[in-house]
Amino acid sequence: MNKIDISLNNLDSAFPEQFTPEMKAKAQTIFLKRLSKTAHQFYKGKMQTLPKAGIWGFNWFNVWYTPGVSEVSTTIRDDNYSSYKLSNRSNLVAVVSDSTRVLGDGDCTPPGGLGVMEGKAFLMKYLGGVDAVALCIDNRDKDGKPDADKIIDFVKMLQPSFGAVNLEDISQPNCYKVLDTLRKECSIPVWHDDAQGTACVTLAGLINALKLAEKPIDKVKTILYGSGASNSTIARFLMKAGLPGENIIMFDSKGTLHTDRADLESKPGSYKQWELSKQTNPNKITDINEVFTGADVLIALSKPGPDTIKPEWIKLMNDKAIVFVCANPVPEIYPYAAKEAGAFIVATGRGDFPNQINNSLGFPGILKGALLTEASEITDNMAIRAAYSLAEYAEKRGIDPENIVPTMDETDVFPKEAADVAMQAIKDGVARNIITWDEAFKLAEADIQNARQSTHMLINEGLIKNPPQDMLEEALEWTIKQF
Amino acid sequence: MNKIDISLNNLDSAFPEQFTPEMKAKAQTIFLKRLSKTAHQFYKGKMQTLPKAGIWGFNWFNVWYTPGVSEVSTTIRDDNYSSYKLSNRSNLVAVVSDSTRVLGDGDCTPPGGLGVMEGKAFLMKYLGGVDAVALCIDNRDKDGKPDADKIIDFVKMLQPSFGAVNLEDISQPNCYKVLDTLRKECSIPVWHDDAQGTACVTLAGLINALKLAEKPIDKVKTILYGSGASNSTIARFLMKAGLPGENIIMFDSKGTLHTDRADLESKPGSYKQWELSKQTNPNKITDINEVFTGADVLIALSKPGPDTIKPEWIKLMNDKAIVFVCANPVPEIYPYAAKEAGAFIVATGRGDFPNQINNSLGFPGILKGALLTEASEITDNMAIRAAYSLAEYAEKRGIDPENIVPTMDETDVFPKEAADVAMQAIKDGVARNIITWDEAFKLAEADIQNARQSTHMLINEGLIKNPPQDMLEEALEWTIKQF
Repeated sequence: MNKIDISLNNLDSAFPEQFTPEMKAKAQTIFLKRLSKTAHQFYKGKMQTLPKAGIWGFNWFNVWYTPGVSEVSTTIRDDNYSSYKLSNRSNLVAVVSDSTRVLGDGDCTPPGGLGVMEGKAFLMKYLGGVDAVALCIDNRDKDGKPDADKIIDFVKMLQPSFGAVNLEDISQPNCYKVLDTLRKECSIPVWHDDAQGTACVTLAGLINALKLAEKPIDKVKTILYGSGASNSTIARFLMKAGLPGENIIMFDSKGTLHTDRADLESKPGSYKQWELSKQTNPNKITDINEVFTGADVLIALSKPGPDTIKPEWIKLMNDKAIVFVCANPVPEIYPYAAKEAGAFIVATGRGDFPNQINNSLGFPGILKGALLTEASEITDNMAIRAAYSLAEYAEKRGIDPENIVPTMDETDVFPKEAADVAMQAIKDGVARNIITWDEAFKLAEADIQNARQSTHMLINEGLIKNPPQDMLEEALEWTIKQF
Repeated sequence: MNKIDISLNNLDSAFPEQFTPEMKAKAQTIFLKRLSKTAHQFYKGKMQTLPKAGIWGFNWFNVWYTPGVSEVSTTIRDDNYSSYKLSNRSNLVAVVSDSTRVLGDGDCTPPGGLGVMEGKAFLMKYLGGVDAVALCIDNRDKDGKPDADKIIDFVKMLQPSFGAVNLEDISQPNCYKVLDTLRKECSIPVWHDDAQGTACVTLAGLINALKLAEKPIDKVKTILYGSGASNSTIARFLMKAGLPGENIIMFDSKGTLHTDRADLESKPGSYKQWELSKQTNPNKITDINEVFTGADVLIALSKPGPDTIKPEWIKLMNDKAIVFVCANPVPEIYPYAAKEAGAFIVATGRGDFPNQINNSLGFPGILKGALLTEASEITDNMAIRAAYSLAEYAEKRGIDPENIVPTMDETDVFPKEAADVAMQAIKDGVARNIITWDEAFKLAEADIQNARQSTHMLINEGLIKNPPQDMLEEALEWTIKQF
């Protein structure tokens, strides 16, 4: 048992030697949760606001505030677009949630999502050089029911102050109405990470997995297990990326999607699933063994496993089967079990297994690209371009079946992704600020470096304190006591 | 003509020698406005978000985000109050405006207030160690009319993410309804700087002016010229501070307030003024000469001068007359003219005259005190306590007729003010976090020092760039060309 290093890199060896690998995996999660609570208490949250412009004497307040700022007010009044040039809105994202589906924890009441949304803001800044504000809002009606229209009103009102909105952790069916309405009616991008974000990174992984399996995307038979926000969007992206709808079979909790599913046709909240019922599974196959037989790709985003996907189903798949099992916290089948059943490549949502399909690879770069071009929306093309950007980056530095996507610590991936997305925004006609790829890359790189250097300087100068070693040890001791 | 220093401290000597003092005063404003625009363009606004907690390896994202953060989500879900301990909400203020009355520039359209609101956030952080987010919102209805109810809904929804709300630059009559409703219905403090903020700093100045004039507050005959949000609140504060209502005469645009003003009784938007009509001017005096004869104090917050208040009126006042003429950008009468007419002490809203009644002395410390105690509201008592705190601070380091209040660069004033306000919050029963004066002082001092050190370190390390000397020179040349 070693002393825990402040980097947390030696966590594995800090647990008692007699712990089995399974115990260690469980212990790691317990430790992270315990430390998360005490560290959040110690710092009282994790994001702050600071000036990005300087003050070299108190006369500068006459520049930044009254009387000088009057010129900024009237300039924006006479040309609202100049707000992108004269305020921080061009680099500012609102992370909006009603906390009704906070990661794996369901409805956490309005303030319950603050930890996650501040975390998202942290990732956005550190990885993408993008400023972000956590806005967990109270949209409950008199009976305590979350009201989609209230979120819609709220986001429409806040548009003038932000360059983009990131919707997060809003439960079904509200999330669909909120997203669809706002994407239609807002003049700034409205991003839903569970939909376009997950679809982007999943597609990136699939592109490289198909390269390794040497299977062209227009030929693979694909199963989408689950048809929530993520898999519905993945289906749309796959079709746009060249995978024919007739090669796809989707599942929801009642079975496969097809045109005899009258329940989907009649339910207003299921219009996306009904749309997909018409585009996929033309032979209306319902038998699970028939579905899996000869399938090349499985993408599961359904309920946590490990027994959601059976090994015998995987066995029915084609050679070089590609298996993405991305439920959190436990994948629909453990990677070792999927491999034993014949899978060639397995990806999950978890960082402690190979091939993590990690949303944090997508949104920081995509939002940065959208903001750099002052885009009015984030098109599917932009997210798909980001997927190819991620895949190209990984391919260039080398891929193998255990390593199909970049990881969060590959810093260089983000400015490239941002620049690629920016170019697609211009191509799609949604950009309001036209720049070259090189300009976009340099701006993104400079902002990301600035964000990281600023953070580490605050740490190095003691303006962000180190966590006390006691805090780390306490979390470890607490963890061990749970066994 | 000198080179302008980056501190802007030698601005006066940078203008051509042949400029008269009046030309220099005018030139200074033109210069500040010009530089404000180019500097805002250079930095693209002035506030950013940054981590306040560290990252010592990528494993820390498993603490700050999933899976660790789950413990934070469920803890807040089970006890909403813990959001103050586990997120940044306990130090975070929403600066909310509909930009309908942006300082002196009127309705600037929704994004038009961003320069001012980011400026407010800058001041809050640098002076008070308080994080703040600029939220200029679109509350216009189909006909383009600003809707008070929309602001109310917006603010109620955002409560779970913030420790306090600062309403700003909302035009009449909406500002009254918004403030009164939100103060009644919100569980976090709703601060209106034009009301409680201005009243606090005005009272601070008056307390010291009365000391110098050796007049007790319960004996002075007082004129309030103007009866908008600021002067209505000043009247309320003065009465709470011991100035009898019968010693006050207030003016609105139609004359003095008294119980024969049926127009005020019948207009729903004037209920505050009607209330004051009943509390003041019992003899229903209407003649302006009669009002000023023998008055000790004039507080004008009406329309910009310099001819709004006549010298001959001042001449009618008592010996050692105290004259506050706080309209911006030009006071109701110039200080030299008021002095010539016999005023003993003159205060204005401007930084280039002595005795600036500057709101920036109030809100950073008051909000910090409210946040430190996790107060549910900011009572009048708390703002009045802040006024005495400011007055005491100035008295301790010495006051004279040209120096009755602290200035913004007297750093130490803010933690003292915050601690005094915190104690009053506890006394008034609105505090949710009970601390001692010493604890409050130390916490406020540490946060303010951290904010300033962080800002200056970003500057010193080049992470906030210096403005190019060319930008300063261009603003100067541009200014001179205007003459």
